[in-house]
Amino acid sequence: MSQPRPSSRLIDQAVADALAEDLGAAGDITSAATIPADRMAQAAIAARAPGVIAGVDCAVAAFRLVDPEIKTAVKHYDGARVDQDDVVIRVSGPARGILTAERVALNFLGALSGVATATAALADAVRGTGAKICCTRKTTPGLRAFEKYAVRCGGGVNHRFGLYDAVLIKDNHIAAAGSVARALRDARKAVGHMVKIEIEVDTLAQLEDALAGGADIVLLDNMSIDDMKRAAARNKGRAVLEASGNVTAETVRAIAETGVDLISSGWITHSAPSLDLGLDMT
Amino acid sequence: MSQPRPSSRLIDQAVADALAEDLGAAGDITSAATIPADRMAQAAIAARAPGVIAGVDCAVAAFRLVDPEIKTAVKHYDGARVDQDDVVIRVSGPARGILTAERVALNFLGALSGVATATAALADAVRGTGAKICCTRKTTPGLRAFEKYAVRCGGGVNHRFGLYDAVLIKDNHIAAAGSVARALRDARKAVGHMVKIEIEVDTLAQLEDALAGGADIVLLDNMSIDDMKRAAARNKGRAVLEASGNVTAETVRAIAETGVDLISSGWITHSAPSLDLGLDMT
Amino acid sequence: MSQPRPSSRLIDQAVADALAEDLGAAGDITSAATIPADRMAQAAIAARAPGVIAGVDCAVAAFRLVDPEIKTAVKHYDGARVDQDDVVIRVSGPARGILTAERVALNFLGALSGVATATAALADAVRGTGAKICCTRKTTPGLRAFEKYAVRCGGGVNHRFGLYDAVLIKDNHIAAAGSVARALRDARKAVGHMVKIEIEVDTLAQLEDALAGGADIVLLDNMSIDDMKRAAARNKGRAVLEASGNVTAETVRAIAETGVDLISSGWITHSAPSLDLGLDMT
Amino acid sequence: MSQPRPSSRLIDQAVADALAEDLGAAGDITSAATIPADRMAQAAIAARAPGVIAGVDCAVAAFRLVDPEIKTAVKHYDGARVDQDDVVIRVSGPARGILTAERVALNFLGALSGVATATAALADAVRGTGAKICCTRKTTPGLRAFEKYAVRCGGGVNHRFGLYDAVLIKDNHIAAAGSVARALRDARKAVGHMVKIEIEVDTLAQLEDALAGGADIVLLDNMSIDDMKRAAARNKGRAVLEASGNVTAETVRAIAETGVDLISSGWITHSAPSLDLGLDMT
Amino acid sequence: MSQPRPSSRLIDQAVADALAEDLGAAGDITSAATIPADRMAQAAIAARAPGVIAGVDCAVAAFRLVDPEIKTAVKHYDGARVDQDDVVIRVSGPARGILTAERVALNFLGALSGVATATAALADAVRGTGAKICCTRKTTPGLRAFEKYAVRCGGGVNHRFGLYDAVLIKDNHIAAAGSVARALRDARKAVGHMVKIEIEVDTLAQLEDALAGGADIVLLDNMSIDDMKRAAARNKGRAVLEASGNVTAETVRAIAETGVDLISSGWITHSAPSLDLGLDMT
Amino acid sequence: MSQPRPSSRLIDQAVADALAEDLGAAGDITSAATIPADRMAQAAIAARAPGVIAGVDCAVAAFRLVDPEIKTAVKHYDGARVDQDDVVIRVSGPARGILTAERVALNFLGALSGVATATAALADAVRGTGAKICCTRKTTPGLRAFEKYAVRCGGGVNHRFGLYDAVLIKDNHIAAAGSVARALRDARKAVGHMVKIEIEVDTLAQLEDALAGGADIVLLDNMSIDDMKRAAARNKGRAVLEASGNVTAETVRAIAETGVDLISSGWITHSAPSLDLGLDMT
Repeated sequence: MSQPRPSSRLIDQAVADALAEDLGAAGDITSAATIPADRMAQAAIAARAPGVIAGVDCAVAAFRLVDPEIKTAVKHYDGARVDQDDVVIRVSGPARGILTAERVALNFLGALSGVATATAALADAVRGTGAKICCTRKTTPGLRAFEKYAVRCGGGVNHRFGLYDAVLIKDNHIAAAGSVARALRDARKAVGHMVKIEIEVDTLAQLEDALAGGADIVLLDNMSIDDMKRAAARNKGRAVLEASGNVTAETVRAIAETGVDLISSGWITHSAPSLDLGLDMT
Repeated sequence: MSQPRPSSRLIDQAVADALAEDLGAAGDITSAATIPADRMAQAAIAARAPGVIAGVDCAVAAFRLVDPEIKTAVKHYDGARVDQDDVVIRVSGPARGILTAERVALNFLGALSGVATATAALADAVRGTGAKICCTRKTTPGLRAFEKYAVRCGGGVNHRFGLYDAVLIKDNHIAAAGSVARALRDARKAVGHMVKIEIEVDTLAQLEDALAGGADIVLLDNMSIDDMKRAAARNKGRAVLEASGNVTAETVRAIAETGVDLISSGWITHSAPSLDLGLDMT
Repeated sequence: MSQPRPSSRLIDQAVADALAEDLGAAGDITSAATIPADRMAQAAIAARAPGVIAGVDCAVAAFRLVDPEIKTAVKHYDGARVDQDDVVIRVSGPARGILTAERVALNFLGALSGVATATAALADAVRGTGAKICCTRKTTPGLRAFEKYAVRCGGGVNHRFGLYDAVLIKDNHIAAAGSVARALRDARKAVGHMVKIEIEVDTLAQLEDALAGGADIVLLDNMSIDDMKRAAARNKGRAVLEASGNVTAETVRAIAETGVDLISSGWITHSAPSLDLGLDMT
Repeated sequence: MSQPRPSSRLIDQAVADALAEDLGAAGDITSAATIPADRMAQAAIAARAPGVIAGVDCAVAAFRLVDPEIKTAVKHYDGARVDQDDVVIRVSGPARGILTAERVALNFLGALSGVATATAALADAVRGTGAKICCTRKTTPGLRAFEKYAVRCGGGVNHRFGLYDAVLIKDNHIAAAGSVARALRDARKAVGHMVKIEIEVDTLAQLEDALAGGADIVLLDNMSIDDMKRAAARNKGRAVLEASGNVTAETVRAIAETGVDLISSGWITHSAPSLDLGLDMT
Repeated sequence: MSQPRPSSRLIDQAVADALAEDLGAAGDITSAATIPADRMAQAAIAARAPGVIAGVDCAVAAFRLVDPEIKTAVKHYDGARVDQDDVVIRVSGPARGILTAERVALNFLGALSGVATATAALADAVRGTGAKICCTRKTTPGLRAFEKYAVRCGGGVNHRFGLYDAVLIKDNHIAAAGSVARALRDARKAVGHMVKIEIEVDTLAQLEDALAGGADIVLLDNMSIDDMKRAAARNKGRAVLEASGNVTAETVRAIAETGVDLISSGWITHSAPSLDLGLDMT
Repeated sequence: MSQPRPSSRLIDQAVADALAEDLGAAGDITSAATIPADRMAQAAIAARAPGVIAGVDCAVAAFRLVDPEIKTAVKHYDGARVDQDDVVIRVSGPARGILTAERVALNFLGALSGVATATAALADAVRGTGAKICCTRKTTPGLRAFEKYAVRCGGGVNHRFGLYDAVLIKDNHIAAAGSVARALRDARKAVGHMVKIEIEVDTLAQLEDALAGGADIVLLDNMSIDDMKRAAARNKGRAVLEASGNVTAETVRAIAETGVDLISSGWITHSAPSLDLGLDMT
């Protein structure tokens, strides 16, 4: 089954806002001054480095919203792995509009493909273990729905989308509630039956409390490799185990091999470098 | 003189949108379930790595918009260089609201401080030369005004904000217009006297045409170090010279020493890693 | 712990939109024509029938947004049971503004208290059984976050907030996927670990499939009382059981006594009569 | 002549907002997980109880906004009386989109048809008298334009749309102005010639003042049947007479037979039960 | 009684939009570059020509929205007649913010005072007759509520606010309906009892039809002075008579003396010259 | 090359907002009551006075947004000079929609053509000199992008679009900075290389300072004709010279003949009378 994409309304709003940001009140004054209105052109957006594509819908929307006369043909869809020089989208139509939309299209495609590419790098590293790469709420303001989707395009899975759709009890919540047991009991009482509950633990002792309290997921925060192995052993499949902290390309495999189910990384959304893509007239 | 910041309206809108993204319809269900409504707390946002701060106003707005009872005290303002463990903002007030706002505050502060820090790294590398580090339109969709500001916080200067506020004639525009001379003439005729005109050139021959055509700024695109030196020599201060392409921490000093006035980098906005900052209850 | 309320931003937006709907471009032309600008008044919003209160924040916001000079004092908070003539909110300040805001304040308070009152009627009827009353997605367009909250004020619990925060596999999904087992497997694979999965079944045979497939919740759709009893017996606490269909004040107790965990009702949101409340000058 | 419908912009905005409420950032995760993207389906929205239809445009918009590929064929237009099992709209196209839009389409259609059905019940009861059923400003926040339209679909007439388009002087306005005569004089002086003026009276003596003061409409508030008869007799057609208070299916005929022109009811908008409609795949 | 002003929400939205238009993403780069952030200043907005003031609330909002620290003191309120050099608003606070808000404040104040001044010029010319000056729907897009208000500040009265709040049957409507009588009958049947009905007539014969049909208001379109006198004589006070066409400062008195009740002018809103006002530092 | 027009998004938003302003919640109640839904019509928008057209896109959008079935054919495009009775746009389609959109279409077309016509009057007066007519920031709130465009349609050139896209140092800025030289130095240091800097001077001595300080443009404010001649002589083409103050149809030629490059006028945007245009059914 294909991933659910951000709705066309979310896409159109985000892209229209980005175009407004780039066009201001005066519009693309350079193209209006130098390119005849009836000049047609063909162009291709191609990767300038290998990576995983995400955000094709946004790029296509940029051209459509600038000028509905511009036609696009997608050559590599979201989730595709591309090499340098692979064409992702072919574009044809009025030259002015193509140049006006170019930067916004590339900004979306580069940013989201960057997230997908970074996710894929970690996902590749843990292949064959039982662990999956997972995102966090450390996303770019305004782009969370898009970055969560890009994580899935890169082979990762999504953590909760916000504060609203799942419970994650952290150290400060435990401190306020008084204990792991009390925090879990309060949470289960407050939220509906459709809401999962995760709790963050620092020690194996806390893990026992979390399991006893019926946590659906337990987040092992900054634990040593050895402690994560012990945690997996004690868990015996009762809760989903998520590891976080010190996740890098170098460390991720060892973490995955401890037996945890998920490894979450903020880096894949907040610090993934943009994938280099360019538009060339053909 | 201090930098003009994004208007309070832009800040409040962007932060309110990010909060809406995080809170959804159900709100912070974890804090509501586990933290008494009247629990007070004190917290500090501190750097977990050295860097340059930008986005303090956004972080402050996140707390204020979640709960006007939360008080904030800024310890390091935008533009400040911080070391690991330096406190940037102290926060006090209702514990629930502090935890609800935490992630949005950190997402803005981390992203924008990341841009400032990346800019400062390049700016430091060219110190003492006549060159300045300059941004591009390769920004995160929706955050351009903020990232442009963060570039200035990091010691860089701004290129145009969008397609609307200055002319930048690129290769496709020149091709459509027929020649460098024609493109410059068309542009000068089309735009008002308050608009600067830049043109991109690939060769020294084109540079001569650009200077003859009265370009205010000439963009030397992907030129060799030697050609940039020749360009600077021929220019004799007539136009502002901007270098772009292959700008990295390793190459930037050599580029600066060619005599160009500006070195533009997309990396400082589209790929700067987030600065690691955290909030701890105190 | 108190219920998480809709954020102040959601409240202010909804109330401001309702005021705009009532004020149009010309404003409250009657009050402007007949009431001196400096006339002060005191008023009380009181129940004209017994019920459960919800929406006090919206009513208070209506007065504040019309004129910040208007003061309000809440006498019965959300969740309170009131009798006829009980005062809910006292209001004082400029008479014009009080009359201008009156209708919008009452429209919110009446609608949401109606939902809370209807929910409480069903919740009262099942008291002492293990079952809870639960809402659905059959809400008033634009008011879902408010109605979900009013359900909680009335002693009910929330089902999922939308299509986005939990999986509910219905008959058409099962048909498309091919079987209960396949639908559950597809869903578990597609969504993250923070998402619960419910499936609707019509028969006890389907229930077995659902339990075997690891459904978190099973929705017993329009089952007979006897079948619901059998379902509860077979379930042995493995999944949460939700009953839906034919839920009325008359039938709800018998359904609750079958041993199901939840009884969902669309009527409490889409057809609850408004609670009669009025504002009187004092 | 057909009723003026809410503009397509109002419809599209309200429906898009309701879809956003239901889809959130993650979208319809169930359908995406279980239904192949290329699966086609046919469905029918049918009444599950007799009633009067309103809101067909909103339901159609829901399908169109989710997926323009979905086709709809309207079988019963707004204002039509339907029996149980009558098909209102046939739907065909991608199965995913049909299921994604289903609930929003039904929520609008059920709510507005509920208003039309309630209005029709009262309108039927007064048929043959000179009286008409009229709505009030006691509407659901955010849906006033739609509910006013649904009232007309049910055979009722509209009162003013808000505080802005007509004057209605109530007891508190009279008290502030000093007298019925003074309130009417102030109002006539303040508003333009295109604005009608109504005044609420409690007694026959006030009615005389209102008629002497030139009120266009007089609202007889909570008067006895006998007093309403006397009011109609004294009025001799000078003003339009509107009755309000204690309007139920049982009392409305007797009120209508007093000779009043209009009978207003808040119940038809704020408490009308939703009309039961369902979508079935065919 | 004072005029109902546009609501504070309408004012704040319009002024914030105008500020956004002026500030863009980069803000007031001149003031930021040249004026120290802590520089305080005092200023006065004064008339540079005689006129009638309208829009003081908008000007005050501009300063407040730019910087809440700026204080304003209103010296001449809306509706006041001012001479050249009369101070309208005194302003004090941070110098940067005062200069940043200056132009938006003056643009509103000048435009709306221009409308008030133009209205007053016509209203003065008809003083002592029974006629009043009335506006039309020929307003500046986006500013109708403000211009309608400015007309009242200048001593005029408002016509309908839009297509929605009153009926005005023009020649094309009459042609489509078939006759004056039919158009009036259709309209009366279609709209509620709270809506006034006006009809446009070109001849005295049509006037008779309009009066017979029960029109509330009759618009005499482009009639000669003599015909308007005859119309007033035949009307005998049955309908309100409105004259339109060829209304200028020179002709308006003669039109008023024909006995019509209202004289409508598009010029007072669509072509009124801005009142010259300036801000000077003091 | 054609002028860059406001983006289709800006146009659609402004026109949709104006339609919302005119239609309110109830819509065009007159046309709905009197015109059959299936009545077709043809109409023409024609000039009733000579002028220069601007705003055709807005007028076309008004018809399209009301009813996509309405077809329009443009006979005179933006920038065209028309005589009385020249048809600008032909319109055909559903009669109701044409009448509903008529006023909004004419309000945009009349206002913007008024600006173009006023601009052209001044531009004609200076033809043959080296001077051009230039606009200011004295525009109608909400319509700046449109009025700036209309100025270009009338043969004028644009000054800066707002506070954000160019520096204009006025007397208060100079006073705050301390001197012309200091203000220019501060500005050059603060803004990027893509931003032009203009400074306002009152005397020839200040002009020398401005030229020495490297101002790109110098604004001669309210100078005498003789001083402007001297200024042009001293400038020797170093800076662009702009004249402002006392610009009328009578004075503009003499100002142009002093040798200044630009003559700016607020009158062409804030006080241009609307061009008289009308729609007639054909």
